[in-house]
Amino acid sequence: MTTTTPLPDVLALDEQAQDLLFREARTANAFTDEPVSDEQLAAIYDLVRWGPTAMNSQPLRVVLLRSEEARARLLPHLAEGNRAKTAQAPVVAVLAMDLDFHEELPRVFPHAAGLRDRLDADEDARRSTALLNAGLQVGYAILGIRAAGLAAGPMTGLDAHAVTREFFPDGRHQVLAVVNIGHPAEDAWMERLPRLPFEDAVTLL
Amino acid sequence: MTTTTPLPDVLALDEQAQDLLFREARTANAFTDEPVSDEQLAAIYDLVRWGPTAMNSQPLRVVLLRSEEARARLLPHLAEGNRAKTAQAPVVAVLAMDLDFHEELPRVFPHAAGLRDRLDADEDARRSTALLNAGLQVGYAILGIRAAGLAAGPMTGLDAHAVTREFFPDGRHQVLAVVNIGHPAEDAWMERLPRLPFEDAVTLL
Repeated sequence: MTTTTPLPDVLALDEQAQDLLFREARTANAFTDEPVSDEQLAAIYDLVRWGPTAMNSQPLRVVLLRSEEARARLLPHLAEGNRAKTAQAPVVAVLAMDLDFHEELPRVFPHAAGLRDRLDADEDARRSTALLNAGLQVGYAILGIRAAGLAAGPMTGLDAHAVTREFFPDGRHQVLAVVNIGHPAEDAWMERLPRLPFEDAVTLL
Repeated sequence: MTTTTPLPDVLALDEQAQDLLFREARTANAFTDEPVSDEQLAAIYDLVRWGPTAMNSQPLRVVLLRSEEARARLLPHLAEGNRAKTAQAPVVAVLAMDLDFHEELPRVFPHAAGLRDRLDADEDARRSTALLNAGLQVGYAILGIRAAGLAAGPMTGLDAHAVTREFFPDGRHQVLAVVNIGHPAEDAWMERLPRLPFEDAVTLL
């Protein structure tokens, strides 16, 4: 089995959507002045919130920065190479996991009696569940931004502890990534980097 | 800002694709006999491998189980409630992170000289990078399975250490989840569980 030529008609998702979400979408490093509306942000959330998570745990929490004041609180904590583009992006999303996601389980996973209490006594289990599932949700969010016809610029080059203290100071959250959101400027991306071929990442038994 | 009615025309992705990937897609708990082809599996990988990861790290590794023999090695390590559906699914994907993903960086992130060596000396950094980014890739994979018109049945109810020893015995991998892949049977899902409304997960500053 090789991966040379994708066979678009094997997939149910049409080729244009494949390109929009995966094949032509790129991590943007520069943005135009064109704004991103509150309606776009709400529509992205409305779409991606349906992505599945273990125990319907949904541990991702988001702070969206639009104002200059809010953004100024973030910039000093980013790796220097990430500052200019983040100052320029119309909206910046700070993505964190909620380690106390279990408090919502009686509402979002109501049939599992006692699960909230079991997790309340097991912070390690909460942490590993939150990390994996918030990771899934970061993936959904990146594709959701692209689904809105916008470019996403995800970054982990930042002082995550400092950003957590700044935007999630309650001690129950941990920042995982920051994602710039906007319309890509010309020359918004680097050369496309290679992906692992099927045979280097997948084994069929 | 509320989330009552999605506004499909706010997104670039057409409504049918939104439904296919997010809104109507469901975690399947029962599968028909209809097979999943190698071509479908290759096309899914070919699509989702373009999803972005930090440093283009791509730490996800996959073992696809199709044969009875391979599946028999997995089933005893699953939570009892996950066994029958996993025995029935045409293909089962075992998803793991490669803690030595940095060995590929000279090939997939060639401009960052010295990064492989810096990460080689920092297992904690490798572990947290692998966990977050393999999480993103699990999210991409679930959506990619749906993009093929198939149902995904992701599970974390398993003895991950035992499954790691069985399918990734080299000590450098760690299993994160197992995903059943196939065509959903009738009554393949439970009642849809509620998602957090925008205002409970997102803050706009």
